[in-house]
Amino acid sequence: MTDPFVVVGADAAGLSAASKFRREAPDHDVVVFEKGRWISFAYCGMPYFIEGRIDRLSNLLSLSPSEVEGRGIDLRRGHEVVGVDAEEKRVSVRTAEGETFERAYSDLLVATGGRAVTGPFDVRGIDGAFTLHDMDAAAAIDAYVAEPDAYDPGRADVSAVDRDRVDRNAAMPAPETAAIVGGGYVGVEMAEALSGRGLDVHLFQRSERLLPPFGEAVGERVETELEGRGVTVHTGSPVGRLVGDDRIEAVAFDGERLAVDLAVVGVGIEPNAELLSGTGVELGEGGAVRTDEYGRTNLPDVYAAGDCATAIHAVTGEEAWMPLGLTANRSGRAIGATVAGDPTPVGEIAGTAVVKAFDQECGRVGLLEEGAAVEAGFDPVSETITAGSRSGYYPGAAETDVTLVADRDTKRLIGGSIVGPDRAAVRVNTLATALEADLTVPELERLDLAYAPPFSPVWDPMLVAAKVLNGSLEE
Amino acid sequence: MTDPFVVVGADAAGLSAASKFRREAPDHDVVVFEKGRWISFAYCGMPYFIEGRIDRLSNLLSLSPSEVEGRGIDLRRGHEVVGVDAEEKRVSVRTAEGETFERAYSDLLVATGGRAVTGPFDVRGIDGAFTLHDMDAAAAIDAYVAEPDAYDPGRADVSAVDRDRVDRNAAMPAPETAAIVGGGYVGVEMAEALSGRGLDVHLFQRSERLLPPFGEAVGERVETELEGRGVTVHTGSPVGRLVGDDRIEAVAFDGERLAVDLAVVGVGIEPNAELLSGTGVELGEGGAVRTDEYGRTNLPDVYAAGDCATAIHAVTGEEAWMPLGLTANRSGRAIGATVAGDPTPVGEIAGTAVVKAFDQECGRVGLLEEGAAVEAGFDPVSETITAGSRSGYYPGAAETDVTLVADRDTKRLIGGSIVGPDRAAVRVNTLATALEADLTVPELERLDLAYAPPFSPVWDPMLVAAKVLNGSLEE
Repeated sequence: MTDPFVVVGADAAGLSAASKFRREAPDHDVVVFEKGRWISFAYCGMPYFIEGRIDRLSNLLSLSPSEVEGRGIDLRRGHEVVGVDAEEKRVSVRTAEGETFERAYSDLLVATGGRAVTGPFDVRGIDGAFTLHDMDAAAAIDAYVAEPDAYDPGRADVSAVDRDRVDRNAAMPAPETAAIVGGGYVGVEMAEALSGRGLDVHLFQRSERLLPPFGEAVGERVETELEGRGVTVHTGSPVGRLVGDDRIEAVAFDGERLAVDLAVVGVGIEPNAELLSGTGVELGEGGAVRTDEYGRTNLPDVYAAGDCATAIHAVTGEEAWMPLGLTANRSGRAIGATVAGDPTPVGEIAGTAVVKAFDQECGRVGLLEEGAAVEAGFDPVSETITAGSRSGYYPGAAETDVTLVADRDTKRLIGGSIVGPDRAAVRVNTLATALEADLTVPELERLDLAYAPPFSPVWDPMLVAAKVLNGSLEE
Repeated sequence: MTDPFVVVGADAAGLSAASKFRREAPDHDVVVFEKGRWISFAYCGMPYFIEGRIDRLSNLLSLSPSEVEGRGIDLRRGHEVVGVDAEEKRVSVRTAEGETFERAYSDLLVATGGRAVTGPFDVRGIDGAFTLHDMDAAAAIDAYVAEPDAYDPGRADVSAVDRDRVDRNAAMPAPETAAIVGGGYVGVEMAEALSGRGLDVHLFQRSERLLPPFGEAVGERVETELEGRGVTVHTGSPVGRLVGDDRIEAVAFDGERLAVDLAVVGVGIEPNAELLSGTGVELGEGGAVRTDEYGRTNLPDVYAAGDCATAIHAVTGEEAWMPLGLTANRSGRAIGATVAGDPTPVGEIAGTAVVKAFDQECGRVGLLEEGAAVEAGFDPVSETITAGSRSGYYPGAAETDVTLVADRDTKRLIGGSIVGPDRAAVRVNTLATALEADLTVPELERLDLAYAPPFSPVWDPMLVAAKVLNGSLEE
């Protein structure tokens, strides 16, 4: 009997791999060990649940345990893999009941994900202080924000939920003022979510700009948008600490204190790479498990995918760590095929990301920051333009800012961003495609992009930006 | 003294060329001869003016004569170029007053545009019967549709307008039932426009499908959309003739008659290539003037651009004739640079087109039709999928149909379409970029496209389609 394909972690990467493997190799076994109770949930949907746009926590589940098992996958929740013997090809597993056993594998996929960084902020033990990186936290924040007599317990409608935690948070008086620590994705999305719930929201960002990976034009537009919607944005204002013993009372910053009764810390995530420590595994960017174009680690028959693994960047050809949903799904699926006998590259990442900030749609791709471009060996030239999203005479045309970055010598496009309220986000896919195809800016300028008054001016904002950047490249 | 750069036609291609030329070669003269009174108007905006979304005809003008002259361009309206002597490098010009003179040129650009084909339907002399290919027609239809006492003459607020024609149409009783002959862009857009004005609209299409260049999935969705909005769609119903002596009374089709009091014929356009007949110029696809990668005809120093000229198709590498707005602007601009001394390719076309049909956004690119793909030497394999436009749990997620076509041997993407109500149209730019970069379907499947719940599911509909088509290609 062949040993099974063993997968550690039952979220996007792990279950994509297991599902693909079973489809391609129906005669082989696959076991997925998941230390917690939750599987296959939409991390990116949690702010929208808290905002109230989504009625039920269960809406965020994409696969139920029985659906997973229906695919022929041996799913073991409450089973934590605590050790890997890469030479003997075995994992040690500890159950929620405290029992331990070993399991041999033919191939191993480590898909342990990431966890919220809390920096100096210990949110544990302080009521009203949260990070947002799991479904229990989402359910708890949602319950905490509601008035005790107005909370609908049916919102946390998944049996896996930590009901005690939900009930305890629901019983507390509803907060009125929220501090969000960190102006990245989670911070911006939570600012919108909590404003939508009627709170007075303060967003604190250590650096001078919101959404740093999206560059200056996006950061500025988003700050204006948030302020226009009543969010108080504190940039260049690192929060020193959370104040409060049992319940959050204030945040301390710049020698000041702001009294708050809710704090959400969203200062980043880090990879869960500890499982492989001591095995001789190589780690790479961000402390994530180093993987090659097939998702292989340096250990034989051991793969890694998702938020715990590195990837290859399409522009630099170098290793990068950018934990995002598509990367996890795609690399998991590719590894499932590879392990089943059909070698499939996991694909490169272009650093594509989009985020919504109230009515502003933001996108970014590639290398935007000058320092990063220089470090990768480029001589970056950048231009930012503002153009209409539709023909000027057509109602709804809206100002759209596009930034393009190219390498001076080769004229190759190396990065870009876009922000605007009218269909801006999905337009970044044009740039992602151009980046992965190594297009130059002159080639970009000659693309035959779509034109119709309701959707685009004759010269799409991407083409306008390419035209202006070309001018600078020719100087 | 050097002879001037002479441009024939003052619309998108001609004025783009003249403007670019003057910027690049400020010491050289450029003369633009335009036979009519109108310059630089947004052809694509006319249906939206008629619909009433746009208040004033002047909103559709992009450059005024004085702005053009302010750019240092010698603009002569009411000057028809009636002959070209390519050996002597001279044009013959006839003024509106009937005078004729000759003018030498250093370089000549023919940008004479296209004209509406009317087929067997002679709309001239029948009140209430129109084609829609110029601003006077747009103003006349708009006036005709209004109740005489409700018409606002301020809508036709451009001095160039044929005021007598507008007044005459405004004075006629408002129509109640409209027949639109032809189910292409103009037909679909006019169906929406006239419905928006409260008319009972019948749309007649000779073939079995609306918007044939967009393929089956789009055509079906648009037909359903139009019917759902109260438009009666008659597919497979060629209209035999327009009935009526002075005023339109009915359309005859399938041995039937439908009484109507408005008919709009939109059965296509053809290139205005006659000016060069007798010069030895080569014509190409569709009877348009054959041009090379720099927009040059086979005559020395004679260029052609816009709706009267051919272009090179990015997928086939062959000549094509697809009269669209961006092509005209882009090729005009490139020719202006080339004539000024900076040789600039006009760019290939990917056949990118988008159109709105009420709430459905439609896009297409490349080769969609099996016959066209086979003729170009491909072995086409096609798949159509339906996927959500956003994460399933996020409000507003809408069914989006994507069709992809690839060549079996090379797996190269050769065409695609998309239709859906949620940001579908601009997504076609991803495919246009992929086509021009010669991406294969496996490469398309691995693109790092944007994911965020409000804008896209983890697997963008393009990626879902690529995945399915890849499966078929591997069979």
